[in-house]
Amino acid sequence: MKATKKEMIYEGKAKKIWSINEDENLLLAEFKDSLTAFNGIKKSQELGKGALNNKISTQIFKILETNGIKTDLIETISDNEQIVKKCTIIPLEVIVRNIATGSLTKRLGIKDGTVLPFALVEFCYKNDDLNDPILNDEHALLLNAIENQDELNYLKNEAKKINSILKEFFIKKDLKLVDFKIEFGKDVDGNIILADEISPDSCRFWDAKTNEKLDKDRFRQDLGNVKVAYEEVLKRILS
Amino acid sequence: MKATKKEMIYEGKAKKIWSINEDENLLLAEFKDSLTAFNGIKKSQELGKGALNNKISTQIFKILETNGIKTDLIETISDNEQIVKKCTIIPLEVIVRNIATGSLTKRLGIKDGTVLPFALVEFCYKNDDLNDPILNDEHALLLNAIENQDELNYLKNEAKKINSILKEFFIKKDLKLVDFKIEFGKDVDGNIILADEISPDSCRFWDAKTNEKLDKDRFRQDLGNVKVAYEEVLKRILS
Repeated sequence: MKATKKEMIYEGKAKKIWSINEDENLLLAEFKDSLTAFNGIKKSQELGKGALNNKISTQIFKILETNGIKTDLIETISDNEQIVKKCTIIPLEVIVRNIATGSLTKRLGIKDGTVLPFALVEFCYKNDDLNDPILNDEHALLLNAIENQDELNYLKNEAKKINSILKEFFIKKDLKLVDFKIEFGKDVDGNIILADEISPDSCRFWDAKTNEKLDKDRFRQDLGNVKVAYEEVLKRILS
Repeated sequence: MKATKKEMIYEGKAKKIWSINEDENLLLAEFKDSLTAFNGIKKSQELGKGALNNKISTQIFKILETNGIKTDLIETISDNEQIVKKCTIIPLEVIVRNIATGSLTKRLGIKDGTVLPFALVEFCYKNDDLNDPILNDEHALLLNAIENQDELNYLKNEAKKINSILKEFFIKKDLKLVDFKIEFGKDVDGNIILADEISPDSCRFWDAKTNEKLDKDRFRQDLGNVKVAYEEVLKRILS
């Protein structure tokens, strides 16, 4: 489709969101090359990273749509731009974990690399000033981050479904889906749909044979070859 | 009843727990005069504090028993000693909040003193090394802190019931029950019962008219007159 940028309505750490002249119910998401970690404290640029994430996320959203998950993706229109359904983002980061690593190991004293007995779902409050605090269900309701318990349960169930679909998909590509963060939005009709992106910025992928990290942890932990890793993930997804 | 100490089986920050010679299904809880805050970083002694908490907690547990809450309390046998049912403590701190203050305001950016629209229940993992991290239900299950979701729901419901009973009781004594922390245990028959203590060490009480703090915040915040406040709480409970 043809889409021309009208007004930038939001700029986040990894994307700019634009209204478009052609349709007021659609938005244009422009993937940036910036890399940030630790709530924006660590920053860098990686030329071509935005385009890689756009391609990776598009493929993943298409796989999810095929498997019955409603998403905001309409169409990818250029290397680093996609058209999405307009929706109001629910201010919860929904995290699903299959293997313990990162903050979970430190917070709860679980050994890094422990395969969890079930897919763990966590909610964090999307609020940079508060450093995205972890929430229980009642906190989410108290903060009016979500309307009611039924909607929270829906998010949990969708997150677990998405995890099942992607875990199975990625292991065929010799990638372990360690954990990931997703966001949901409400479209103009009030339907809750998957939004934002699913990419090596928001997932942890480990090579199934070597456990080599192929995600943003390469940036967080200064492991180098960030772009090489993202390219490898895209190559495997398309293989 | 007559009870003689046999062996100290546990020493916590505020109590020593002893087995007794007379009955292997009972324990003796000895309330200490030590005051600690911020996970034991701040420490002090307040002569007579243990006896005050023993008396206050005994009265509160009796009120709860009268209102259908099962507790571990058998009998108070001296100024700072009570006999309790032996139980295995569930390693969850169950926190109920009616008014936002303390850690909640900092974590979630809620203004100090905000009356919450419902009684908020939080679970923290009882683990000093990890600084008692806050948990969602799935974390509690993952850590095997609790056996299943039904038991977690039972804890939540009991906590809310206890809150209703005590909030109503204390407001008649011109005390606002701001928040409190409770612990549960499983007795030898597998029943979940209220254990530990409910005292100004584990609750926040504000004078209903002046909002003066009458609890351990006087120690945490160096407001002075700690024992005077605990004595005032006991006086009002017995009034």
